[in-house]
Amino acid sequence: MKSYLIGAFLLAAAPALAQQPAAPMRSVDPQVAALRDAALKDDIAWDIVEGLTTEVGQRLAGTEAEARGRDWAIRKLRALGFANVHVEPFDMPTWIRGPESAEILAPFPQRLVVAALGNSASTPPEGITGEVVGFDSLADLQAAPDSVVRGKIVFVSHAMQRTQDGSGYGFFGGPRRQGPTVASRKGAIAIVIRSIGTDYHRNPHTGVMTFAEGVKPIPAGALTLPDAEQLQRILSRGQPVTMRLTLVSTTGRGRSGNVIAEVPGRDPRLPPILVGGHLDSWDQGTGAIDDAAGIAIVTAAAKRIMNARQPLRTIRVVWFGAEEPGLFGGFAYQKAHNEPHYAMAESDFGAGRVWRVNSKLGKDREPEGRALQAALAPLGIVPGKLDQADGSDIGPMIGAGAPGVELSQDGTHYFDLHHTPDDTLDKIDREDLRQNVAAWTAMLAVLSGGIQTEPKRPRRR
Amino acid sequence: MKSYLIGAFLLAAAPALAQQPAAPMRSVDPQVAALRDAALKDDIAWDIVEGLTTEVGQRLAGTEAEARGRDWAIRKLRALGFANVHVEPFDMPTWIRGPESAEILAPFPQRLVVAALGNSASTPPEGITGEVVGFDSLADLQAAPDSVVRGKIVFVSHAMQRTQDGSGYGFFGGPRRQGPTVASRKGAIAIVIRSIGTDYHRNPHTGVMTFAEGVKPIPAGALTLPDAEQLQRILSRGQPVTMRLTLVSTTGRGRSGNVIAEVPGRDPRLPPILVGGHLDSWDQGTGAIDDAAGIAIVTAAAKRIMNARQPLRTIRVVWFGAEEPGLFGGFAYQKAHNEPHYAMAESDFGAGRVWRVNSKLGKDREPEGRALQAALAPLGIVPGKLDQADGSDIGPMIGAGAPGVELSQDGTHYFDLHHTPDDTLDKIDREDLRQNVAAWTAMLAVLSGGIQTEPKRPRRR
Repeated sequence: MKSYLIGAFLLAAAPALAQQPAAPMRSVDPQVAALRDAALKDDIAWDIVEGLTTEVGQRLAGTEAEARGRDWAIRKLRALGFANVHVEPFDMPTWIRGPESAEILAPFPQRLVVAALGNSASTPPEGITGEVVGFDSLADLQAAPDSVVRGKIVFVSHAMQRTQDGSGYGFFGGPRRQGPTVASRKGAIAIVIRSIGTDYHRNPHTGVMTFAEGVKPIPAGALTLPDAEQLQRILSRGQPVTMRLTLVSTTGRGRSGNVIAEVPGRDPRLPPILVGGHLDSWDQGTGAIDDAAGIAIVTAAAKRIMNARQPLRTIRVVWFGAEEPGLFGGFAYQKAHNEPHYAMAESDFGAGRVWRVNSKLGKDREPEGRALQAALAPLGIVPGKLDQADGSDIGPMIGAGAPGVELSQDGTHYFDLHHTPDDTLDKIDREDLRQNVAAWTAMLAVLSGGIQTEPKRPRRR
Repeated sequence: MKSYLIGAFLLAAAPALAQQPAAPMRSVDPQVAALRDAALKDDIAWDIVEGLTTEVGQRLAGTEAEARGRDWAIRKLRALGFANVHVEPFDMPTWIRGPESAEILAPFPQRLVVAALGNSASTPPEGITGEVVGFDSLADLQAAPDSVVRGKIVFVSHAMQRTQDGSGYGFFGGPRRQGPTVASRKGAIAIVIRSIGTDYHRNPHTGVMTFAEGVKPIPAGALTLPDAEQLQRILSRGQPVTMRLTLVSTTGRGRSGNVIAEVPGRDPRLPPILVGGHLDSWDQGTGAIDDAAGIAIVTAAAKRIMNARQPLRTIRVVWFGAEEPGLFGGFAYQKAHNEPHYAMAESDFGAGRVWRVNSKLGKDREPEGRALQAALAPLGIVPGKLDQADGSDIGPMIGAGAPGVELSQDGTHYFDLHHTPDDTLDKIDREDLRQNVAAWTAMLAVLSGGIQTEPKRPRRR
């Protein structure tokens, strides 16, 4: 359990920050500070994440389980007193996991633990059998002559490293995102990768991938880290390695939807502030940190503002559907709501504490970004950039120019759990969750009600 | 990576020990100290544990996999130069895991992760369905009226706590060992327990249980800790909970065996020193810490003595078969070798460092026990009792009066991995493994060659 200093700047204690130019920080509206600090005792977010993961469990996009999640969401959001609670449905392609296994037949017979990647082609129920050819990285696979790969099961063992901000996910995720396409183009019959993850438990990391246009889909799976290293050791003996790989899946069409709820603003003509997360999850855990925690955090913060006062601007809470298979909810929202937003922000990087605030509100609104930094600093949150923000479902809208805020969560341990059966409620630290709610409450308090643009009592640090 | 002080007593730094009466410690034979310290750079044990877990993998008792393990053992022990390498086979009942799953059908449909306990009755392939009745402990189940249990699936959520010496395994293991019998007697159709384990990963802990005579076998499984707590939360909602439980298994007869190898002593008439571990493992991991590490440690230590000099007494290395389902190898050895042993010791509590030495060599040999303590202290090993020792396969023989030594491993994290799919090579710390080899080498050096009973240069601490 951690405790957070309340009402005191932690900046002086942070060595990295101490080296930054000491820009004088604005003072914080006492009402904002009070809302923020009260949220450090929040129980609303825990209630949501506990309820959704217990009473619904996994919520694979486009399935009946996700639909039960939407029903649960509607009931919960209405019970919390939100206005305009409704679903905006959309159709989408579905991919559903079936039986899966990986077995070394020779030279050392044994089973490995594997999970299919989303959009993997299906093997027959009895699996396919082939010789394994191993590569240390996507680049090595790309450089290999087709003749080395043709007819084989490709194995890429590229190892992910931890980062706090998750910035390695792009690079280390290459074998998952591009590997299957590259392998198929070279004539491989299947591909297994070392999980894009950082833990040593026998729970593989799934995740979506898409074959490039015109490329023949092949079965694609992820081994756990212990299994991937086992396969490396087996290959290192220098004998031909034969694997039977069974990755059965089915595809079709399904219905998903975005669940929307609002805290109506005093001036309904003003553009709303969108805060969101995604309701769907992968199928093997209960989607606790990905992303029940996210929707719980933003909903609790909105609820706390609702309880305190009517904000000037409408706060719109969106529980996006079908994020995991490809941001279907985000794109559906963008299409349906092609209108100005005052700001948008999404919580979708686990349940670790917020360590940094970035924003991209536009050049003329940088003072507002600085006011946000000042309001968040007492939570131990580093002032980040003023010209940068990102999010998953909202990413394309921010890319298209929507003003964005990013409350960066600590992702040091995120990829221990990401897309695995281990993404369950017990992984969430309640105090970290509360710090998140406090950060989002402060952010909404600053943005929703008009801001204090002039420092009242500048203080030196 | 840890480093161990070499040739220096760590006792002064251990607060608990500082409070013990400061018995003057014997000096250590320089040859023993040299052998011990050289073993801190051992690579033999790693080679064995890496090889066995990679080239054989899991080694379920009585199966073809365990037989491959014996073949591997014979090759390895001969290659290492041991004498009299042979198998002493025996027959045994087998229990083999089939498909297994647990599914909540109502009120909140979702899958839980389960593993059958060894000797569980088999369900039909389509599983059985029943209402779940939960108990917080074995005592609560025992106290329940039959009418509450009859026709139900019993769930016991008793939570294990960590201990360094593993002493909680007896108490906390009750739901696994006695729970199925108690539940069956009360008319339950099946039982699932919270895993006897201390980790929060979705890898259930299996382990053997035996129905009491005359009790009808019922299906019995273990849920992971995240799943057990999920089931508790679901039950806490107060609605009837229906579960479909599939635990398919098959039983039969199989062949196992003890693999034996020796370092012949200079005087073959003297009783041998037995050091052992067990070759078999549970079926879901690769049996790295349970117990490839154990046989690797004792074998490496014996090999190091062999390389250094011919010991006075024969050292007999035993890789017991079929420990997990009920010490079949230990009993077979006891029956075949009803003869005096100079001492026996077994390594079967993971791969954590040795933190304590106990011995039970007999009242007249307590000086030898003290010499052992002195030789081991520089490795940071606490002097334990002189009238106590235990082991798994050798437990019954020690109970029957055989002299025993116990090099206690640190088990604080042992039950994170014990009997789970997570028992894999990556969990072993090479430096901890080396400290084990050094301890066993020192122990064998003291016991195998005649000991120094008089202190040469008493030193005060």
